[in-house]
Amino acid sequence: MMRTRPLKVALLGCGVVGSEVARIMTTHADDLAARIGAPVELAGVAVRRPSRVRDGIDPSLVTTDATALVKRGDIDVVVEVIGGIEPARTLITTAFEHGASVVSANKALLAQDGAALHAAAHEHGRDLYYEAAVAGAIPLIRPLRESLAGDKVNRVLGIVNGTTNFILDKMDSTGAGYQEALDEATALGYAEADPTADVEGFDAAAKAAILAGIAFHTRVRLDDVYREGMSEVTAADFASAKNMGCTIKLLAICERAADGGSVTARVHPAMIPLSHPLASVRGAYNAVFVESDAAGQLMFYGPGAGGAPTASAVLGDLVAVCRNRLSGATGPGESAYAALPVSPMGDVVTRYHISLDVADKPGVLAQVATVFAEHGVSIDTVRQQGKDGEASLVVVTHRASDAALSGTVEALRKLDTVRGVASIMRVEGE
Amino acid sequence: MMRTRPLKVALLGCGVVGSEVARIMTTHADDLAARIGAPVELAGVAVRRPSRVRDGIDPSLVTTDATALVKRGDIDVVVEVIGGIEPARTLITTAFEHGASVVSANKALLAQDGAALHAAAHEHGRDLYYEAAVAGAIPLIRPLRESLAGDKVNRVLGIVNGTTNFILDKMDSTGAGYQEALDEATALGYAEADPTADVEGFDAAAKAAILAGIAFHTRVRLDDVYREGMSEVTAADFASAKNMGCTIKLLAICERAADGGSVTARVHPAMIPLSHPLASVRGAYNAVFVESDAAGQLMFYGPGAGGAPTASAVLGDLVAVCRNRLSGATGPGESAYAALPVSPMGDVVTRYHISLDVADKPGVLAQVATVFAEHGVSIDTVRQQGKDGEASLVVVTHRASDAALSGTVEALRKLDTVRGVASIMRVEGE
Repeated sequence: MMRTRPLKVALLGCGVVGSEVARIMTTHADDLAARIGAPVELAGVAVRRPSRVRDGIDPSLVTTDATALVKRGDIDVVVEVIGGIEPARTLITTAFEHGASVVSANKALLAQDGAALHAAAHEHGRDLYYEAAVAGAIPLIRPLRESLAGDKVNRVLGIVNGTTNFILDKMDSTGAGYQEALDEATALGYAEADPTADVEGFDAAAKAAILAGIAFHTRVRLDDVYREGMSEVTAADFASAKNMGCTIKLLAICERAADGGSVTARVHPAMIPLSHPLASVRGAYNAVFVESDAAGQLMFYGPGAGGAPTASAVLGDLVAVCRNRLSGATGPGESAYAALPVSPMGDVVTRYHISLDVADKPGVLAQVATVFAEHGVSIDTVRQQGKDGEASLVVVTHRASDAALSGTVEALRKLDTVRGVASIMRVEGE
Repeated sequence: MMRTRPLKVALLGCGVVGSEVARIMTTHADDLAARIGAPVELAGVAVRRPSRVRDGIDPSLVTTDATALVKRGDIDVVVEVIGGIEPARTLITTAFEHGASVVSANKALLAQDGAALHAAAHEHGRDLYYEAAVAGAIPLIRPLRESLAGDKVNRVLGIVNGTTNFILDKMDSTGAGYQEALDEATALGYAEADPTADVEGFDAAAKAAILAGIAFHTRVRLDDVYREGMSEVTAADFASAKNMGCTIKLLAICERAADGGSVTARVHPAMIPLSHPLASVRGAYNAVFVESDAAGQLMFYGPGAGGAPTASAVLGDLVAVCRNRLSGATGPGESAYAALPVSPMGDVVTRYHISLDVADKPGVLAQVATVFAEHGVSIDTVRQQGKDGEASLVVVTHRASDAALSGTVEALRKLDTVRGVASIMRVEGE
């Protein structure tokens, strides 16, 4: 039985994602109505520049006054695809106060203020959905929050930024250096003019905070996420990775400690074995690997960005939120009951691949090995290569804490025979 | 705010999956209560052989009278992990009549009687969830039914049977023949003593019916699914596949016709390019590739069977259904509004790899090519190999309808110069 009064949707932002949302709402109106049980109507579109022509959008719906739109009182769902902290945060809060549920694609805001926004939604008995905030079209929030609700997630390991994966994949497949690969990504539109948010891992860190929070039923804020970008990854690092049967990916890693009593979240480049399913994720694709007690190893793969894929995720949420409104219920809200402490990077335990430039003379290896031993870091393999009085030493460790490894590296730098630490790369996914 | 009166769960079946469900309900009781908002209590366990010891299950809960259990009237959720058509169907229907919602892992029943069961759930205002029925722990039903609810799915292409994937992967990696690989699968417990349901594609066909129904918002029954097993795949087929840069997988394929006006569902072995993400799915793992208008290409990967993975999916549903009961709502029910016709196999359009044993004399290729042309099947490549008066001809076609291809093969068999049709294999995922 179809309700005939339409549900009213306010769209905040009409750029790459917003215009796709509006387009699909129009072209697929009948399907959406059938799936929701009532028609949905685009009731207003808030933009900054109303002069820009927007194909297929009734000009009378367009406004620059987003605040007035969310305050109208007849809006059932506000779709926020503006991005950034303000005015998005105030608009979302105002939307809840005026009775609307919210679908957002705003990873930065969710990572920074997710708890407060969830609280506002809960206070007003409304929904806050944000599948599109992490890994674009890939269903990830809903599987973690609902499908795995009866399981215990121990690790989330993901490629959640398409720009950096495109660059790293290019370096891997062509032997290009970082700058060359970045230039190509920029030329093809995969990287923005200022690529900082992507290549320095800020974008991935926001997603890691959101994923860790949901996976571990614990509030994890952006500040809790250790972050290291990938702009210093070199062609030499890829050569080293190949020697190890690995490639290099920028990974978002959320882990429960072995004793279960704490969690960590981090973003950094890492070597992963070629046999790992994440190793073969090409181009700008995203993929997230989830390990849980009962389900074992799951992977979710797909386009992590782009107007249409992100709009697909927004519309899936829109359908769910509309159904909830019709049934008078709300979907799962914030689940932070576990409230586990978030440990600092020093507590992370993993393996390391370290390249040292050393003097090519007897006794160097013994000196270096002693430093590792003194810091309790056990060495798995060492490879030594000499050339012209200089030599390089590649050390791969067994599992050690990041704090112990940092202490080791600090001490190595003080050795006269160590000319420099060429690179330190974590080894994950084994 | 936690409700203290527990939700009562009746478990039907306590084999590999059921005992895991019971175990997790006990060991993770606090987590489940926090996530649901109320404790859940195992109120009864119906089994066939009560004498078998079941660790950790209170013997006073065990009964052989499943009917009395589902009729008790105080049961909130019935978890059905018996499998098979009866008595599962009657028990589920009775459960709805007595006010319970149902979580089922029963692919055979859902594929055969999904519409009637959904109708019964709807009539009584209860939920019917069955994530575990398809691809074990892999979240698939929920993403298709909810995450992609605002998108248009055009194709679902999946490895949904772990036994056959184990066998085919073994044949691919070791060059083993079918029987040898099956024997190993049996010895390792991946194949049952009677492997018919797996190797002849019945299991995969049931899953294809369920997936097609959800993906296309159309009722698709088991009888609508074309089915071809993989017991006739040979080492020679793998050699041919390698020549094409392909491997062979048993695929469940659900497609919307190019004009959008009908759908097809089928299960058969097929060649897929090594570059396709499904090609690298190893061992008993499952993976499902979904193509949609807006989201593009998504893949879901994980363990497709086993007690713990299947229990993870059951418990995810249990949490969702319990939440719905607390909020007085129901989740999405059957969505069959599109009611598209399901076309027969003859209407499927794909490419074909055909191996012919032919007489090694001039003019044979011309004869064969004429037969293809007469049936409107365009040839992409031909490879001819002669040996001792016999020759083999390998033809790869462009896209053609299955009906046209069948007509071609029938006519080829009638040629004097064609000694036999060694194999016909569809080529997918290009």
